[in-house]
Amino acid sequence: MTGFPKSVEFREEGPREGFQIERTIHPIEQRAELIDLLGETGVRRIVVGSFVSPKYVPQMADTAELFERIDRKPGVEYSAMWLNEKGFLNALAADRVHIDPMLIYYTSDAFCRRNNNCSMADMAERQKSWIELYRETGHAVASAGITTAFGCNFEGEIALSRVLDVVRTLMRQCDEAGIAVPTLVIADTMGWANPEAVRRMIAALRDLLPQGTRIGMHFHDTRGLGIANLYAALQMGIDLFDSAIGGLGGCPFSGYGDARAAGNIATEDSVFLCHELGIETGIDLEKLIDAARKAQEIMGTRLMSRVLHSGGLDRFRPRPATRSKAM
Amino acid sequence: MTGFPKSVEFREEGPREGFQIERTIHPIEQRAELIDLLGETGVRRIVVGSFVSPKYVPQMADTAELFERIDRKPGVEYSAMWLNEKGFLNALAADRVHIDPMLIYYTSDAFCRRNNNCSMADMAERQKSWIELYRETGHAVASAGITTAFGCNFEGEIALSRVLDVVRTLMRQCDEAGIAVPTLVIADTMGWANPEAVRRMIAALRDLLPQGTRIGMHFHDTRGLGIANLYAALQMGIDLFDSAIGGLGGCPFSGYGDARAAGNIATEDSVFLCHELGIETGIDLEKLIDAARKAQEIMGTRLMSRVLHSGGLDRFRPRPATRSKAM
Repeated sequence: MTGFPKSVEFREEGPREGFQIERTIHPIEQRAELIDLLGETGVRRIVVGSFVSPKYVPQMADTAELFERIDRKPGVEYSAMWLNEKGFLNALAADRVHIDPMLIYYTSDAFCRRNNNCSMADMAERQKSWIELYRETGHAVASAGITTAFGCNFEGEIALSRVLDVVRTLMRQCDEAGIAVPTLVIADTMGWANPEAVRRMIAALRDLLPQGTRIGMHFHDTRGLGIANLYAALQMGIDLFDSAIGGLGGCPFSGYGDARAAGNIATEDSVFLCHELGIETGIDLEKLIDAARKAQEIMGTRLMSRVLHSGGLDRFRPRPATRSKAM
Repeated sequence: MTGFPKSVEFREEGPREGFQIERTIHPIEQRAELIDLLGETGVRRIVVGSFVSPKYVPQMADTAELFERIDRKPGVEYSAMWLNEKGFLNALAADRVHIDPMLIYYTSDAFCRRNNNCSMADMAERQKSWIELYRETGHAVASAGITTAFGCNFEGEIALSRVLDVVRTLMRQCDEAGIAVPTLVIADTMGWANPEAVRRMIAALRDLLPQGTRIGMHFHDTRGLGIANLYAALQMGIDLFDSAIGGLGGCPFSGYGDARAAGNIATEDSVFLCHELGIETGIDLEKLIDAARKAQEIMGTRLMSRVLHSGGLDRFRPRPATRSKAM
């Protein structure tokens, strides 16, 4: 066991993951209001939306306009996602988007063909062009995401060895391009992870990656194990997580055709866990609950996170500032 | 770290914890149907209801009748709860109630006074009369529950040392009565536990208790840490848990006056975790999901458990029987 990190960084995915799966397009004013509330919480990065095809993802069609509306807070990175060159150029052209030059690798051939109409090997090869494009536009690759790293509904279990092979490809490409291996974000896209698989994955990645390479985890709470997976990753010293306010999001490939199958791990529940363990997040839980309430109001349905409904524990504690660590 | 148990026993609390907190009294036929579905799942104990005052808990007033209606499955214990001698005698008089002679200890004086109009010390003293009453009626004490063992909304954090003091009282009483220390069930009644506190608690109890004393955990998922607490307890080798189908239940003292604050850890999510870790439960997850659907139908509201909505993973696996352990 590596031991808990002293502090943890959460990247807020709610505005993107939460709204791109919705059947309706919620008013842009409401989404801007949610982002502004999130900006007050102390979270350091908010993924505002995606620069993707308005034909396929109409929910994200107004991302550029959303960037113009948000009330930027100092120290907060307002970032976005893109899937092709056009989207990236749109992000560059939009109003003060924090550019996170990312690479994306697949571990499931079936899922890759479905999403990208190419093999996972071809998709990995394409990342070389991204490295070049980022370089040409004056950006350094900051992160590399690995999708369905624990399992895929189309291919079943994803062997750890396959994930490691993909990481070796990334490392070779970085070496050839003369760049450092970026932050690696392991995504449990379809909710297959369990805490033991998380621990094994992290241990194997630490053995493989260059010393000091940061690892982040992107968990979905599809089958209720999200917070246990977070805890297992914390036990292994991981200090970077994606999460979504209120547990927004979901995966269209999970559940019984039920798009309301749970989404990302809820930011407020995750932050609560860290604080109870004595791990700093820089986030104000009460303000986070305010943002979760706004998210619930926008969605018009009871969200499935917990602390949103129950609140934290500090209001029952006489002197929260002096309580003993992790009790 | 002790290591996972080979198999785990879940005690199904849904019919009791889930319905006694409801504002309305759901038809007895529906509750009997739910219990019958639960009886098919492989779960070995179902807490059917409580023999308590119909004046204070009208939702449980028909518990004796419910026992007459259930379709008993071989190997399943249909048990009940009581809080005073009258309730116990009613349980004895009812139709084939599996008697679980239990003791109850408090760790919060304020909560004890509120519930029992006496101090926690007096309440502990009263357990001697229960030991006697059980003996007189030909029963051996089977379990001892410790309430609000991690924290209490009325008293704040409960120190581990106070829990250990209560356990010493129990041990002394057992010694004086010449009986073995029964199974100890540690209850996080108001949702204060975190996984590190769980690990510390179990380690300390193991040091204190006679070799071989079984420890069970009763977790509420009030603040989203329920499954992480379950995982932490499994890491420490605990093999007995209370849980509730669909995550039914709640605590009237938690939340923002919101009785729908999450209840017990959901049986289907908990069983899913165990199976993913390679731990046997003897429970059929698909049948459990059927029971969870019935619970949701009766409640008439979307339940907050996860596997109910997403399903398990075996349907995506080619040969679930031969898959490698805990992957």
